[in-house]
Amino acid sequence: MLRTGEDYLKAIAVRKNVEIFVMGKEVKDITQDPFLKPSVMAFKATYDAAWEDDTRELARAKSPFINEEINRFVHIHQSPEDLAAKVKLLRKLTHKTGACFQRCVGWDALNTLYIVTKMMKADGRPEYYERFTDYLKYVQRNDLALAGAMTDAKGVRSLKPSQQPNKDAYVRVKEVTSDGIIVSGAKANITGVAATEEIIVLPTRAMGQEDAEYAVAFAVPTDSPGVKIVVGRQVNDARRFEGGDIDGVPYAFNHEGLVIFDDVFVPKERVFLLKEPKYTVPIVEIFSAYHRQGYGGCKAGLGDILIGASLNLAKQLGIEKAPHVQEKLTEMIFYTETMYAAGIAASLNAVKLCEDCYWVNPLEANITKHWVARLPAILNQLAVDIAGGAVGTAPSEWDLKNPKLRSYIEKYFQGVTEFTAEDRLRMTRLVENVGLGVAFQIESIHGAGSPAAQRITFNRVYDFSYAEEIAKRLAGMKNNLVWKKEAEPWRGTETERMASQTMKNKS
Amino acid sequence: MLRTGEDYLKAIAVRKNVEIFVMGKEVKDITQDPFLKPSVMAFKATYDAAWEDDTRELARAKSPFINEEINRFVHIHQSPEDLAAKVKLLRKLTHKTGACFQRCVGWDALNTLYIVTKMMKADGRPEYYERFTDYLKYVQRNDLALAGAMTDAKGVRSLKPSQQPNKDAYVRVKEVTSDGIIVSGAKANITGVAATEEIIVLPTRAMGQEDAEYAVAFAVPTDSPGVKIVVGRQVNDARRFEGGDIDGVPYAFNHEGLVIFDDVFVPKERVFLLKEPKYTVPIVEIFSAYHRQGYGGCKAGLGDILIGASLNLAKQLGIEKAPHVQEKLTEMIFYTETMYAAGIAASLNAVKLCEDCYWVNPLEANITKHWVARLPAILNQLAVDIAGGAVGTAPSEWDLKNPKLRSYIEKYFQGVTEFTAEDRLRMTRLVENVGLGVAFQIESIHGAGSPAAQRITFNRVYDFSYAEEIAKRLAGMKNNLVWKKEAEPWRGTETERMASQTMKNKS
Amino acid sequence: MLRTGEDYLKAIAVRKNVEIFVMGKEVKDITQDPFLKPSVMAFKATYDAAWEDDTRELARAKSPFINEEINRFVHIHQSPEDLAAKVKLLRKLTHKTGACFQRCVGWDALNTLYIVTKMMKADGRPEYYERFTDYLKYVQRNDLALAGAMTDAKGVRSLKPSQQPNKDAYVRVKEVTSDGIIVSGAKANITGVAATEEIIVLPTRAMGQEDAEYAVAFAVPTDSPGVKIVVGRQVNDARRFEGGDIDGVPYAFNHEGLVIFDDVFVPKERVFLLKEPKYTVPIVEIFSAYHRQGYGGCKAGLGDILIGASLNLAKQLGIEKAPHVQEKLTEMIFYTETMYAAGIAASLNAVKLCEDCYWVNPLEANITKHWVARLPAILNQLAVDIAGGAVGTAPSEWDLKNPKLRSYIEKYFQGVTEFTAEDRLRMTRLVENVGLGVAFQIESIHGAGSPAAQRITFNRVYDFSYAEEIAKRLAGMKNNLVWKKEAEPWRGTETERMASQTMKNKS
Amino acid sequence: MLRTGEDYLKAIAVRKNVEIFVMGKEVKDITQDPFLKPSVMAFKATYDAAWEDDTRELARAKSPFINEEINRFVHIHQSPEDLAAKVKLLRKLTHKTGACFQRCVGWDALNTLYIVTKMMKADGRPEYYERFTDYLKYVQRNDLALAGAMTDAKGVRSLKPSQQPNKDAYVRVKEVTSDGIIVSGAKANITGVAATEEIIVLPTRAMGQEDAEYAVAFAVPTDSPGVKIVVGRQVNDARRFEGGDIDGVPYAFNHEGLVIFDDVFVPKERVFLLKEPKYTVPIVEIFSAYHRQGYGGCKAGLGDILIGASLNLAKQLGIEKAPHVQEKLTEMIFYTETMYAAGIAASLNAVKLCEDCYWVNPLEANITKHWVARLPAILNQLAVDIAGGAVGTAPSEWDLKNPKLRSYIEKYFQGVTEFTAEDRLRMTRLVENVGLGVAFQIESIHGAGSPAAQRITFNRVYDFSYAEEIAKRLAGMKNNLVWKKEAEPWRGTETERMASQTMKNKS
Repeated sequence: MLRTGEDYLKAIAVRKNVEIFVMGKEVKDITQDPFLKPSVMAFKATYDAAWEDDTRELARAKSPFINEEINRFVHIHQSPEDLAAKVKLLRKLTHKTGACFQRCVGWDALNTLYIVTKMMKADGRPEYYERFTDYLKYVQRNDLALAGAMTDAKGVRSLKPSQQPNKDAYVRVKEVTSDGIIVSGAKANITGVAATEEIIVLPTRAMGQEDAEYAVAFAVPTDSPGVKIVVGRQVNDARRFEGGDIDGVPYAFNHEGLVIFDDVFVPKERVFLLKEPKYTVPIVEIFSAYHRQGYGGCKAGLGDILIGASLNLAKQLGIEKAPHVQEKLTEMIFYTETMYAAGIAASLNAVKLCEDCYWVNPLEANITKHWVARLPAILNQLAVDIAGGAVGTAPSEWDLKNPKLRSYIEKYFQGVTEFTAEDRLRMTRLVENVGLGVAFQIESIHGAGSPAAQRITFNRVYDFSYAEEIAKRLAGMKNNLVWKKEAEPWRGTETERMASQTMKNKS
Repeated sequence: MLRTGEDYLKAIAVRKNVEIFVMGKEVKDITQDPFLKPSVMAFKATYDAAWEDDTRELARAKSPFINEEINRFVHIHQSPEDLAAKVKLLRKLTHKTGACFQRCVGWDALNTLYIVTKMMKADGRPEYYERFTDYLKYVQRNDLALAGAMTDAKGVRSLKPSQQPNKDAYVRVKEVTSDGIIVSGAKANITGVAATEEIIVLPTRAMGQEDAEYAVAFAVPTDSPGVKIVVGRQVNDARRFEGGDIDGVPYAFNHEGLVIFDDVFVPKERVFLLKEPKYTVPIVEIFSAYHRQGYGGCKAGLGDILIGASLNLAKQLGIEKAPHVQEKLTEMIFYTETMYAAGIAASLNAVKLCEDCYWVNPLEANITKHWVARLPAILNQLAVDIAGGAVGTAPSEWDLKNPKLRSYIEKYFQGVTEFTAEDRLRMTRLVENVGLGVAFQIESIHGAGSPAAQRITFNRVYDFSYAEEIAKRLAGMKNNLVWKKEAEPWRGTETERMASQTMKNKS
Repeated sequence: MLRTGEDYLKAIAVRKNVEIFVMGKEVKDITQDPFLKPSVMAFKATYDAAWEDDTRELARAKSPFINEEINRFVHIHQSPEDLAAKVKLLRKLTHKTGACFQRCVGWDALNTLYIVTKMMKADGRPEYYERFTDYLKYVQRNDLALAGAMTDAKGVRSLKPSQQPNKDAYVRVKEVTSDGIIVSGAKANITGVAATEEIIVLPTRAMGQEDAEYAVAFAVPTDSPGVKIVVGRQVNDARRFEGGDIDGVPYAFNHEGLVIFDDVFVPKERVFLLKEPKYTVPIVEIFSAYHRQGYGGCKAGLGDILIGASLNLAKQLGIEKAPHVQEKLTEMIFYTETMYAAGIAASLNAVKLCEDCYWVNPLEANITKHWVARLPAILNQLAVDIAGGAVGTAPSEWDLKNPKLRSYIEKYFQGVTEFTAEDRLRMTRLVENVGLGVAFQIESIHGAGSPAAQRITFNRVYDFSYAEEIAKRLAGMKNNLVWKKEAEPWRGTETERMASQTMKNKS
Repeated sequence: MLRTGEDYLKAIAVRKNVEIFVMGKEVKDITQDPFLKPSVMAFKATYDAAWEDDTRELARAKSPFINEEINRFVHIHQSPEDLAAKVKLLRKLTHKTGACFQRCVGWDALNTLYIVTKMMKADGRPEYYERFTDYLKYVQRNDLALAGAMTDAKGVRSLKPSQQPNKDAYVRVKEVTSDGIIVSGAKANITGVAATEEIIVLPTRAMGQEDAEYAVAFAVPTDSPGVKIVVGRQVNDARRFEGGDIDGVPYAFNHEGLVIFDDVFVPKERVFLLKEPKYTVPIVEIFSAYHRQGYGGCKAGLGDILIGASLNLAKQLGIEKAPHVQEKLTEMIFYTETMYAAGIAASLNAVKLCEDCYWVNPLEANITKHWVARLPAILNQLAVDIAGGAVGTAPSEWDLKNPKLRSYIEKYFQGVTEFTAEDRLRMTRLVENVGLGVAFQIESIHGAGSPAAQRITFNRVYDFSYAEEIAKRLAGMKNNLVWKKEAEPWRGTETERMASQTMKNKS
């Protein structure tokens, strides 16, 4: 079933018993809440995309599981082209929302669990794969809005889950019952969660046997008893309560939330990993690489918006032909397209883990994210440079709307006569809200793992000893070099090693 | 007279007829206004500094004009050490406010006018110097809170004042009367203006004879008839209306405003430049270099705060010993001290334009500002990297204060047990408010002139042809090199050339 | 015919009448010349690659033109995978040579002429395509060593060819005879030219009708009458005459040369473009994008060598576990893999211009090269940082070989006892010769067009007006946005527009 | 006595028994050796400077020790202005030599030993101070050419001197005799040492009691029995043997050497530290800060040369008005002046350790060097970008001088007609030799301590806990902040603490 955006709105409005808090107050209908409505609208855009001319093709896919056309956001990638379509779709969708539309995490979680449960099956544990594919069909048939919940509260970062002073610092299996499990803990920074129907929970780090009770993956409806969502604050969030249409977020914006699992029951058929820490390694590797790849699309899309906004403001100010402005715009293209190119490489240079398991190239996905952690701050800097000090000093829309002030604002905020002062205020606020917004300034750094996590991957995947042997040979030192036959010089990931031991033989 | 902070508060509360608008509404007593109070408190800090043990020495100076100890913020620099004391004071004061305290612009305007009116006197026009020194004594005796208003509305950036479609795009002399002048126009981005008692107006660019009516400098009380102030918005400003003590600005913050001069009368004795465009060159050069130097102090101070906040959050999370965290903190020191070192060089390597005219080194002042335009975005990026995604996702203080949620927040936002979840929220918000705040993200780029302006100065001051001759000689090409006797290789500024033709002969 | 490296050596040694000058002296047998031998060995590696286990698969391809297995370096790309194979092969080959192997330019010239002559055919001018495919078959059958000659002498950069004071500043058709043409001019910076059998000449810039006589493409044997080659100098070149095996280049290195065409006759069947300036546009666009893509392979390969060398020196010095060394190595991986990832994106995200015309993605190819122009200098900086000051101060191999000094050098240049002082000297010299070598420091910047050329491409290809409309819509301004259906947001190149008008209809 | 350059040449030619090896061969008269002559000429420039009009004032100082005018290179700094004069002199001298003139290290060693022996005196050990001031007077009276030898061979970097497998990995006191000491070991990377008359040896790291025998400082004549010098190689060094006047180094260049102490006897009166490891701390801190400050002068001087050379080549090519060229030149000014500004700050913001002990500001000296470790590689990149690919491909001067080729080179290497092809070759080679030269590419990184050493200083000097308390106060957390009275926020160095305990009380 392919939902429309309206279908989604209706569904999300009728969730029962959902416990969502915003700024300390409980919110029942998020579609009417000024804080969360932009987030709902951003989520909705992923549904509309399947029906709009320009995105229809990218936003739909054919599911081999239910043999129907589905929304790509619940699709299991079947080819490198599918992976590239993800990046392309995300870039285009960002052009529509100006913000994160929040549906990638759940999507990446589906694809992760598909591969890992298939690994488990190849390892002789078919039940997880069966449960998961049942769940997948349910999601695809109903085109559900999913959250992916990975990051735990984490407490003391230097301690393992079982070493924490707070036993619930990582989500854990508190009890196993005959028909399911009871979980406790919290997941933090969960994108879009208040606007979803289901939450898929994955472990956030590789674990050893001592942390077995924390090695758990499952799905629950967002309105399950015991689930509480505390929506987080963001830069400029309080402007949403003003009721204006210029200074705050005019249309869409993402949110993140803390999801508390207060002894939540999960039925057996929704449990996809239970106390088998060995599989936390591929879960984390696969998910994080998928998610890092995606940023090549959405952050490039935000880059496009800042380029367009900067160009427009340059025109408004009459400086669009100044060489330094043109150099800055060119530099912005360079950075924007770098993020995208890396995401495309991670997609088309995919790793095929089994017959229908297409994983992104893990090294290139991490390259993508590592640039995403660096370039947006510079993109914003360049945009602000062109846009002018007004980004930090322009009057509010309420000044423009005050009849005593309107003529002054119109007189003193206009640049060239082709544009009005209101045009300038609107575009200036877009630069402020996008360039300094959470998606570009915070999520770009920490989303899908902080920069240090990408660096660990670089070090794991890169074949240092091979590089050293090459250098020794060229330097004329004795060495043990055996030339690699692989077309690419790096070592595989742990996931690739596990997959080659299981699925490549058996599936 | 050395005022205390309380003295200032009393004075600022009783201004009559002042017309200040915030978010579309008029504000009468800014000391009680939630939007402007942080700004008042930041201004107040400059008065308190003269009485507090740690800053007393730096914040006071002896005026040769009134022969009294005065607040350094109204002092005319008498030595390179005075210039360095400015940078040192600004760094220390930032530690107290966490924000711009807004009193530098007026101070820099005083010092600029002192030198330029002295030039005019040496040129045979003593009246401006006399008017100005009278005004200076009045300011020093009363320890007044001054705004410096330089940036015009500017309209179409590529056109000169007289070519603008809007005749008032630059502040102009509309009429000259027997006892003064009537001015019209607006000054934009005026730091702290709503919290001042006097506004000093300077021209914002070098002008030719065709723009003579725009070549005007003067001072008026902030509550003069016809003066209207529209306070600008900033990142996260709306949180000030919430009444909390964590998420918004707990203490101090700067503001900028649009100052409209709606046919404002300026008495003759407050006019310091009238239709003599030739002096706009040194006014702009001198002022901008003074102001760019100062950023070496206050932006380094903000860097210190982010370093401290990042370190503290690293401790809270238990990662303060991770090598990548230590590398990031070190990099933050490097950037912070670079801004400061350049400011110190600009101060101690001062240019003496006349017997008691100490100007900053213009090249080094521009080096200072150009780094200030680049490094804060990276400093913030490093701080956010250490602080974690919570900067963009942490719950509001209202969640913490909600008894239904408090225990959850306390449980899931605590890191090591030495600190509480509230500690973490508080410090996370400090990173957000300082790192993404206007002072660090916007003002750092555009304050005291945008990056392109510094680059123009580099090109003007650097002696390209000398460098070329040196290279030709080393390459063995024929050349005309005459070795320079000056210790430093660059050409002088226009200001230095003007000063050497006038003051060095005559004063 | 697939040649071996030995086959190539024999062929290159017997060229007659070739006029090659090195350091002012004529060289007859380049395979015995100390300056050029490293270059011959690097070229040879491209032939050996087709026979060595690790590269055999990558280095061979099936030609649809002669229906034989051929060396990939003379292959016309038949798919995105072929394009990616190029980048992968280049990276691996660099591991063997430690230097540019110089055979890409001719290869890229072949692929460029294939597409453009096909365009001309679709435009109703089939003769060029026929001549070219005949030539192509000749090249493929004989596995010839080709140079690609594009960059002209260029004289005054700001003038067009026909405006130059030196009429031969660009290669031109001096005369058209019944059976061919006579050309005059010179091509500069021609990689590997002294080690080739044929030179393919392409115009270096887009031209208008006024420059028609400069719009010429052709191929001639390297030993044609009137062709003179002056081999250029490089960093550290003079060490090759010392006869050592440590300090200079132990094995392979590239060269560039000035190729002078002193009234050279080109028979008609080797003329592929004659005075039709319109086709200079796609020639330049296609060639430069192909060549920029390739750098993602070979420069990443040099990055690998520096990583390996730095790691080995860190081990020799006992600092390989120091966190700052590890951070630097990680950063080196990041930069190396960025260049590679962009090259892979440019390949797999190919543009199909006709049924068998696979062009690289022009935007991503330019992204690749623009990083290549920036990152190697930093990679070298990091390598030198780890390697230590010895890169600039280590004794010569002649000191080590002097019995009076040997024991001292052995005593004072050894780090950990697992390695000898000679090991350290060898590896230190590798860092010096690769890191400061021409390929990494000069060619990375200027090869395949200088950075400014990439920036022009960014601006041409990026769809600024679309980005502006997106921003206007999000800002709530009136706009004319029509959503694009294309999956990627940029405008096409001129080449794509020409191809769609000709080939897509007709081929 | 103020020597002329000629005086120096004479003195250096007559040293007896000096053992100097270049490229494996012993050299007796370095003033006639093609490898070392450029180095001698660079050293000579420091003597000439005292007599040339443009530098005379900067290059002379009045010694309070011998009460005569002396060459500044043997002066003990008496004020912040003296420190700034050093930086200014170094920048100007670089304009004359195009290279390091090698006399700073000995100068910095003198100033270091002056302060540290004074500390020892204040600690009750006056003999070292007396010996040293006697030596100082001898040096000043004879205007001697000194080397400063600090960096040891170091063996395994992670082990202390006494832990090394090679006992001589650090220079040590092998025996104490009645009239002196016998030392063994080697100092590496010793700048200019072959061109000096005396070598001052300092310990290279802070040491504990276990390394007491390595805690030694002394001076010996360069031709002392047992001293052997092995001169190191450099980029492009072999060109010096060609005898040309374009491609190699036309005038001046520095060298570094390995100095071997093969049981060298040092008379008691030349021993300035003997087995008192406690003083190694201030020796290392003081020396390294002095030397790091100086780089703000000489590396800025090299930046000037590259700016001039780039500008000239841009003119030759007719592109000097292209906006991207102008942006690059401006960026080069920014980087060049940044290094200089930091050096000036380190000088004028000096630390006064005793009545006549002026030390540079240690934090700002380290800021200076840390930029010097980063910016030159980018400066070179920008210069090469402007200069064009010819930096890596231009013909040799021997091609130009070959009558068969001359006309071709003249025809094809000329740009605008105001300059000749020879002009272009000359300037292109200057870019190559300066930009890729050892001074800019290697010494900039490792000279005066590698980047990691500066970072350690940042961390030591910066007052982290104060920054943390400031942040805690602003965040509203409980804290223990006591506002600092010091004008600058950082903690002192160990040297400052030692000085305040000794000299400030007693001297």
